[in-house]
Amino acid sequence: MKLAKLIGDRFKEKPADCVIDSHALMLRGGYMKNVGNGIFSELPILRRITAKIEAIIREEMDAIDGQEVLFPVVLPADLWDESGRYDSVGSELIRFTDRNNSRLVLAMTHEEAAVHLVREYAQTYTKYPFMIYQIQRKFRDEARPRAGMLRVREFTMKDAYSFHTSQEDLEKYYAICYDAYYRIFARAGIPEVVTVASDSGMMGGNISHEYMLLTPIGEDVIVFCEECDYRANMEAAENIADPPSTGEEQELQCIETPDCKTIDAVCTFLNADIKSSCKAVVYQKNRDDTFVVAFVRGDYEVNETKLRNLVGEEIHPAEITETDCLVAGYIGPYQIAKEAEVYIDITLKGIPSLVAGANQEGFHYVGLNLERDLENATFVDISKIQEGSICPCCGKKAITIKRGIEVGNIFQLGTKYTKSMGMKYTDEKGEQHYPIMGCYGIGVGRMAASICEAHHDDYGPVWPISIAPWEVHICCLRADDEDTKAAAGKLYEELQDAGIEVLYDDREGVRPGAMFSDADLIGVPIRVIVSPRNLKESCFEITTRDKTVREMVPVGEAVTFIQKLKEEMYQKIRETVKERRICI
Amino acid sequence: MKLAKLIGDRFKEKPADCVIDSHALMLRGGYMKNVGNGIFSELPILRRITAKIEAIIREEMDAIDGQEVLFPVVLPADLWDESGRYDSVGSELIRFTDRNNSRLVLAMTHEEAAVHLVREYAQTYTKYPFMIYQIQRKFRDEARPRAGMLRVREFTMKDAYSFHTSQEDLEKYYAICYDAYYRIFARAGIPEVVTVASDSGMMGGNISHEYMLLTPIGEDVIVFCEECDYRANMEAAENIADPPSTGEEQELQCIETPDCKTIDAVCTFLNADIKSSCKAVVYQKNRDDTFVVAFVRGDYEVNETKLRNLVGEEIHPAEITETDCLVAGYIGPYQIAKEAEVYIDITLKGIPSLVAGANQEGFHYVGLNLERDLENATFVDISKIQEGSICPCCGKKAITIKRGIEVGNIFQLGTKYTKSMGMKYTDEKGEQHYPIMGCYGIGVGRMAASICEAHHDDYGPVWPISIAPWEVHICCLRADDEDTKAAAGKLYEELQDAGIEVLYDDREGVRPGAMFSDADLIGVPIRVIVSPRNLKESCFEITTRDKTVREMVPVGEAVTFIQKLKEEMYQKIRETVKERRICI
Repeated sequence: MKLAKLIGDRFKEKPADCVIDSHALMLRGGYMKNVGNGIFSELPILRRITAKIEAIIREEMDAIDGQEVLFPVVLPADLWDESGRYDSVGSELIRFTDRNNSRLVLAMTHEEAAVHLVREYAQTYTKYPFMIYQIQRKFRDEARPRAGMLRVREFTMKDAYSFHTSQEDLEKYYAICYDAYYRIFARAGIPEVVTVASDSGMMGGNISHEYMLLTPIGEDVIVFCEECDYRANMEAAENIADPPSTGEEQELQCIETPDCKTIDAVCTFLNADIKSSCKAVVYQKNRDDTFVVAFVRGDYEVNETKLRNLVGEEIHPAEITETDCLVAGYIGPYQIAKEAEVYIDITLKGIPSLVAGANQEGFHYVGLNLERDLENATFVDISKIQEGSICPCCGKKAITIKRGIEVGNIFQLGTKYTKSMGMKYTDEKGEQHYPIMGCYGIGVGRMAASICEAHHDDYGPVWPISIAPWEVHICCLRADDEDTKAAAGKLYEELQDAGIEVLYDDREGVRPGAMFSDADLIGVPIRVIVSPRNLKESCFEITTRDKTVREMVPVGEAVTFIQKLKEEMYQKIRETVKERRICI
Repeated sequence: MKLAKLIGDRFKEKPADCVIDSHALMLRGGYMKNVGNGIFSELPILRRITAKIEAIIREEMDAIDGQEVLFPVVLPADLWDESGRYDSVGSELIRFTDRNNSRLVLAMTHEEAAVHLVREYAQTYTKYPFMIYQIQRKFRDEARPRAGMLRVREFTMKDAYSFHTSQEDLEKYYAICYDAYYRIFARAGIPEVVTVASDSGMMGGNISHEYMLLTPIGEDVIVFCEECDYRANMEAAENIADPPSTGEEQELQCIETPDCKTIDAVCTFLNADIKSSCKAVVYQKNRDDTFVVAFVRGDYEVNETKLRNLVGEEIHPAEITETDCLVAGYIGPYQIAKEAEVYIDITLKGIPSLVAGANQEGFHYVGLNLERDLENATFVDISKIQEGSICPCCGKKAITIKRGIEVGNIFQLGTKYTKSMGMKYTDEKGEQHYPIMGCYGIGVGRMAASICEAHHDDYGPVWPISIAPWEVHICCLRADDEDTKAAAGKLYEELQDAGIEVLYDDREGVRPGAMFSDADLIGVPIRVIVSPRNLKESCFEITTRDKTVREMVPVGEAVTFIQKLKEEMYQKIRETVKERRICI
């Protein structure tokens, strides 16, 4: 490929709306173009990268006995009625009608389609286990698309679905897939990805893991234990009660606290420890605006995912008006309006004496003891774990918090879809059962952007050779000089004949600086600089994009040198692809 | 791949709703499953075939300097506003809104997206020409999806867009692409595909060609000349006036014709030659229900595509009520109501004396001479060419009519999209122009079904090796016999080691008949039958799906034999891939 013919503009200025590097570099390098809110077209450079990522995914899925299929992007609403998700999924699901007024959806995930495809096929136990997968476009109407290819509305995704006759068999395959995912990420140049326990969200099921690329710009908050192997997404991390040692039981007293509408204000006013205060955070159910009140200790935050899972339906931050049953700023668990659904966090358990709202304007209780003062006080886990919290696995106070990009996820779905959609098989004894499912996703475009995020410098991406758009980039510094151009052209031919993918920049009248800037933005791992000066010494200058190699190589040895360099790069990647074993 | 693990059911009964063979066979063979009206999932066998077709297309597009990109399936309506197609395209275009009430469409073709992608990039003539393509899902809300994968609503399509600075350059590239398409079809096993001139329809532009696989079950009607190379889609075929030699000029007379509401009835009543009669076919504009009246000679039919192109907007068959300006059954061109838009076909030109409706209930004119009696009579081409009509190319009466499946199409688009979307480039002199576009489509699934239609027998598809799901199918006839199974298993391993794609049927307890029926439905070109009887003679029986080969081959020579057979099959296909040259 000649660079002069490569479709896509490269430019110097960082676009104003880019807050993360991969987004800015991929726009600046002509990888993609924004078509609409969270909708991109892929230009040839990116399409070459995504094609290579897709090929790696395909190989690894085939290697674990996956069979590739293709589900439609547009699905009849009936299928989503069967699973119940037509109603239960929020506005991320695009619903529309066709010319005959039939209801359709844009599939954002394909559990229903997978069950539909195999429910007649897999009616006897002898067909199990099996896994089907596809690489297909999906559309999810995200409220806030952002960060370039990291959070988009339309994307290419590999989604796989496995079917089993026992939980043990699912777990066995889940572990195999868990390993395959590590191989995929390692082969694509991000072996540093870690798994974390995650929340299953709208997918159903219990156990699930996310593959996280740790980076400060990540959207996900991840909880690590410094003492043991515990890793979880903040959304899923269990928070262990750790009651403060201070405070003694007191008499319950209602006292005036004028203008103390925040927990900080009331603690300051009463000179109380925030660890002995009870904070209310109020939501409403999307369905009917019923109030849902979450009480957590004053120094904790509500984990909305855990709360939502408990409530069992979609909620949103409440708007409380004067006519409502709740008194904004003075809400407490004692004698709260019966209309509200109340959840009390485990961080409030075992505290002898609390400050809490009195459910009347301008008043708080002090000396509140929930176990003593409430009838049947029950405590649930709805708070966010914090830096230094108790590890739910080893029990040590060793929790640290980092950020990451989710590059893949795997779920043990159980029978949610097979049951709701009436898929059954007959076992050895002639009895009927619902098969148990697993599902396994990787976003292709997000993976490309994540690799860029993990491998770039100030000047552009540093693509791992396994997914780089080309393997070698020839810069012919004086294409107007006949001998130089001839030497570069010859190398271009020879490398291609040797089966190497080459991008060849033979533009005339482009300054070396501009040429190198372009090469940096395209991020090809091996670069050959052909110039009259180098040729005077009968050499090419060969460098690597990661700056570890810079050598003058005799013209006659260049192809062999490059082949060796390329092979070393692939070898390095292969070395990172190790067997890993999950302990679920 | 072991057949026992292959996802998908095979069955014997022809599904009731299948009217064409490929549809029935592909359902019976477990290639696909219907998900909704015109929406299918591809099972693994079909996905393997479509993947191979995609690979062939990709190679040929890359070979003519195409650069692969990826456009979104979901596009903002704004882009379609720019081209005017948001309004001009009918209900095939799915329109919907997202959570923010932004208008979106499901792309059914990507001209707008292509212009959007490159309009900043290609602002100077030095960037031209270039071609971008994608292989992507599309959705077209067809009124009547049918015939399995032949006419669906959602489909995978390769669509390519080329950009040029002159008509000559477009034509040069168009010819290159024309050839590439022949190579694609030949490589996929259907070299018999022919091109026909076609109507450009909603795409805009003038010259366009369709690639047709001739078959009686085809939806398209194709016009051939037996004397010259003329070939056209019926929709686009020019009809040449061929006035009957009979009849003399007469006086115009209005006469009573009670209950003669059809052209046949009035000709019988008046004992007139149908070739001297004038038939009215009435339409209404979709936009405002204005009447559009098409007059053709009594023995011709209206070509709605040509009429629609003249009218310049969508029309539908009219419903005429008693209060309308037209008198149903008695409509004629003389003194017709001024509210109606009138088109008179060239088949009515030069006829001295016509029978035609008198625009009053129960009356017709006789002796109507359009050139004499109408002011400024103009004749246009809106009739369907017929068997035996005059060839518009060589002028001989040698037209024959056949049917075909459209497997690809190429269009010279002109500046329709670049002009409407404001894409310009600067030429050598600094002047600005709109680039000229070509576009080039192939439906992947339809191509698979067409190949099946072209290559099948009563028992299943006979896939060409280049796109077959596997190259070799091993039937182990007595898998319960240890030696037989060992021999088959060894061959399976050896063939795979030799880089051959093998499907291995080692199911126990399946009768040979059932095993062969399955093999026939899967249609793998080379079959190896391993049985105790054959092994007694130390042989495998090797056959081909097309029944041209049936040989007993010594076990030790089987791999070599199969490799040779495979190579011969590929060689045969390569021989059909010849250079062809277009004469536009």
